[in-house]
Formats: sequence, C-alpha cells, structure tokens
Amino acid sequence: MSLIGLDVGGTSMKAAVTHDSEVLLTESCPTDREDPVGGILDFAAHLASRAAALGSPAQAAGIALPGIVDESTGTAVHSANLGWRDVPMLHLARERLGIPVAVGHDVRTGGLAEAELGAGRDAGDFVFMAIGTGIAAALILNGSPYPGTIGWSGEIGHVVVRPNGEDCACGNKGCLERYSSAAAISRRHGASVPAEEVIARAGRNDEKAAQVWSEALDCLADGLAATTLLLDPSLLVIGGGLAKAGESLRAPLATRLADRLTFREAPRLTLSELDDQAAVKGATILAARLLPPHKPKK
Amino acid sequence: MSLIGLDVGGTSMKAAVTHDSEVLLTESCPTDREDPVGGILDFAAHLASRAAALGSPAQAAGIALPGIVDESTGTAVHSANLGWRDVPMLHLARERLGIPVAVGHDVRTGGLAEAELGAGRDAGDFVFMAIGTGIAAALILNGSPYPGTIGWSGEIGHVVVRPNGEDCACGNKGCLERYSSAAAISRRHGASVPAEEVIARAGRNDEKAAQVWSEALDCLADGLAATTLLLDPSLLVIGGGLAKAGESLRAPLATRLADRLTFREAPRLTLSELDDQAAVKGATILAARLLPPHKPKK
Repeated sequence: MSLIGLDVGGTSMKAAVTHDSEVLLTESCPTDREDPVGGILDFAAHLASRAAALGSPAQAAGIALPGIVDESTGTAVHSANLGWRDVPMLHLARERLGIPVAVGHDVRTGGLAEAELGAGRDAGDFVFMAIGTGIAAALILNGSPYPGTIGWSGEIGHVVVRPNGEDCACGNKGCLERYSSAAAISRRHGASVPAEEVIARAGRNDEKAAQVWSEALDCLADGLAATTLLLDPSLLVIGGGLAKAGESLRAPLATRLADRLTFREAPRLTLSELDDQAAVKGATILAARLLPPHKPKK
Repeated sequence: MSLIGLDVGGTSMKAAVTHDSEVLLTESCPTDREDPVGGILDFAAHLASRAAALGSPAQAAGIALPGIVDESTGTAVHSANLGWRDVPMLHLARERLGIPVAVGHDVRTGGLAEAELGAGRDAGDFVFMAIGTGIAAALILNGSPYPGTIGWSGEIGHVVVRPNGEDCACGNKGCLERYSSAAAISRRHGASVPAEEVIARAGRNDEKAAQVWSEALDCLADGLAATTLLLDPSLLVIGGGLAKAGESLRAPLATRLADRLTFREAPRLTLSELDDQAAVKGATILAARLLPPHKPKK
C-alpha cells in the first residue's frame, strides 16, 4: 500500500509515490494551462494506476496547490496564475481516485516537510520562505504551518519594501517580489539572463549583475527583518529555486539581516534541505496523516 | 479574597484590586525612575496591604511590564527605557508578597484583556497594536498572546516603513515608531504640540499638522498591511494613548489599509474597548489564572 504526494506548480507538476517512506516512483509533467484542474486529476489518476501496477495500490493522496488554499475545506480558492477560483479540489480528487485526499498550500506544505524532515526538524517555531517565480512564506508554529484566518498567511512577497517602487502585478508598488524573486532578478538584469546566471556574474564583479543582486538581497533582508520583528522565529529557512544559489545567497543575506536587527540577534538563517522536493514530501506527509495510526508488524 | 493587577509604564504605574470581577480599588503612581524595580515591589506591597485592610486579602498578583519580557520564567529581560536587564521579577514579587505572581509583557497583556473582555472577544486570531510613546503589537493566536521564540514578537514599531528615513533610537532608520507614535507625531510637528492636538489641528486643515498626521497614518497603514500579509488576522485592534483620537484615527487608517491590500480584503479595524485599562485588566487575568478553578457556591 502506498501514498501519493503531488505538487502543482505554475508550469509543471511533480509527484512521488512512496511506501513506508521508500520512494517507489517519481514523475513530473507540464501543468495543463488550458485545463489545470483536469490535468491535476488526470495526473493523480495516472499515478494511482502506476502504483497499483507496481503492486502497491495508493491508500491516500496529498496535493499541494499554489495560490490561495483553504486547507480546512480542501478548496483551491484562487490562483491568478492558473486562473481558477473556488475549486473543490479535495472533493474532486477524492471522487476521481476513490481514496482519502488532503489538500495543502504549496509553500505551507513545503514548510511542513522542512519541519518534519528538513532544515526545521530540530527547530522551534520557524519561517520557511520559498523564492521562485514569486515569493511566499510558511509560518511553522508548534510544528504545523499556520494558515492564518482565511488561508492567506505568509504573503511576504507582497510586503512593500520600496514604497512607491516598481509596479507589481498585485496592483501595489514596491513589493518584495518585484525585486527579489528569481523572475524579478532575471527581468531587472535584462537580456534574458536567468537569475542563477545573474548571481554568478555578480560574483565575477559584473557591475549590472552585482547591482541587481545586491538590491535583491537588500529587499529580502528588509522582508525578513520585518518578519523577525513581528514573529520572533527561532530560524529562517530559505527554499524555492533561488536557494540553489547556496552560500552566494545565504551568507550575504544573513549579514544584511543582522545589520537591520539593531537591537536583537537575528535568527539563524539556513537553506532548505529538501530543495524542490519539499512540497512533494509535504504532500506525502498530508496523505500519511489521513491514515489510521500505523500498527507495527508483529 | 482579591486579585492585584498592576501595569508598569515608563512614566506611571496603574493598578486595580478586584474581587470576583468587581473593582475594589484603583490606584496609580509615578514610576520610580531611580529604582524602578524597588518602586514596583513597594507599590505591589502597598496594594496588597490596602486589599487586606478592605477585608479582602490578595490571593494572587499579575504584573505587566514594558520592554522584553520572558513570560515563561517571569523575567524582565530588558527595558531600555527603565534601564533594567534580566530582573527575576516574578521571583522578587512572589517573595515580597508571599502570594503567587504572574508576569507579562505590557502590550501582550493588554491584548489578552482585549481577547477576553474587549474588542477581540468574539474574534478569531487577531492583532492588538498599542500606539503610545512607542508602538508594539500583540499577536493573539488561539485566544492567547503569542510571545514568539524568545519573547520578542510584536515589535512592529521597528518595522522599517521608510527605508533610509529618520534615525531611530534603535540604531536603524525609518522605523514605524519614528513617524506614527504619539511622541513622533508631537515631535515631527514641533513647538511642543501634543499628538492629540496635532490630530485636532489636522482636522481643521492646519497644513503642517495635516501633513504630519497624514504621514503618520500612511506609515501605520504600511505596518498593518505588512502584518496582515504575513499573518492574515481576522481583526486589528488599535489601543494605547493614540486610540483616544477615535474615528479621526480609525476611519482614515482603515481606508489607507484597504488601499494597500490590493488583492485581498482588509481585516476589520477597530479601536480598543478597554483603553488605558487593557494592561491592568490583562494583569488581573494573569493573576486569576494562577488560582485553582473556581468552585461555584452551593
């Protein structure tokens, strides 16, 4: 008997089927931008049939979704990127698969995995911030992601760090995301240079790249300083695609954060240990929680 | 049998002695700036003897303190204003009074009272922000103030809202407190005009006053927008001395907050119902929690 963990991104979906923490198979496929909900259900059904074909039928599935997610009802409330609104995803997936299904917010689900298996496993309350196309955070309180009152917590990407700054797609100006997401770093540099290359060039003293990267770091430090002042976390974990930059990101960000926290120590800043598998693993944890407690074999 | 609730401020201390929620006496006195700890203990002992003289000896005391407070150990970790560091206040007060004592952070204690008796009593998770000489917040999660990992949560007054703005005493620049505290509003207007008078003059189209007040409101809205994006509270409660401005504060602040939250609804914004008694009442709640559960009389 196995578990399905599925992570839905804006451009691709990733999944794993596991049995007793052992990975039986992993798959990824493009997100269906015409019919994202149909595409998710088809992919989930395909994973279930592959699991069955391997002799380990799926017992439960967890699905991590982008946008605004109401975990209590399993509803995909809104995704500007995928164009859905109020999709009863839990219900639809449960009907299609015929097994228990849990639905989570992608960054909170990633944070859950970091809390159980990754960089946060020995920490108290901590913040997981995923930097990719956008920027969002999961607040891990008491071992679990805190969704907020209506599932909208952790929107650090839209905290204003440069008042009257660059126009953001959200309608506001100067949002963190406009300066520090992987997409923003690439865009602000120009000439179709991806973020990781901008960071590499900054390290080689390319002036334009150094300037864009330095501003991105400053804005990230501003956002994390505000988060620290409000929440007083024990640890900050950076994940998402940009975390692949490793120490080129972590070390200067930690320094800039400490500079801003003038009257208190900065929390420890570390990189995700689960990389781009955090949400898949978190979705598997959500699935496992749907099962009755495991009875050890005699 | 009675309870003592004591709120220590930077310039004065306020207290109430209550019996079954009925106020037997209230008192206030200046904070002893030479020996603040001795002054607090003397005031508490005085209250206990007055309670005894009224025939209702104190059973327990709660003390709300400014600065950084570790509620778990009852330690007054640091107050820049009162100049103490690592004072074992719970221990000292318990020894002096001979009754159980609880110690809380002043703003969190005020937030607790709003949660139990005031503006937050029918709310889910909410944020209480006190605007006085400084600005700080209490995050009320699950009915209780969330202290953070080391008791430093809610430092919204030092969230930077104007990068490279005015120098703050904390060593940083552009902190919310530098623009929107009662002290800042008075100082930025100049000519020793207190904040409430600046607000009144702004309403009469005094240009200088209108400008200072408008910037104070903008900065408050910036800080509350960041808080909302991170935490997704159900409600924002404004307390502290500046809340006496009433609708002159609440209405324009609510409008500016909604303008900033472009992709989500703003949480409801309301004023404290307990005014400057919030922390005293909260301290009394802390004291009551030290007692065994109340047995109804037969």
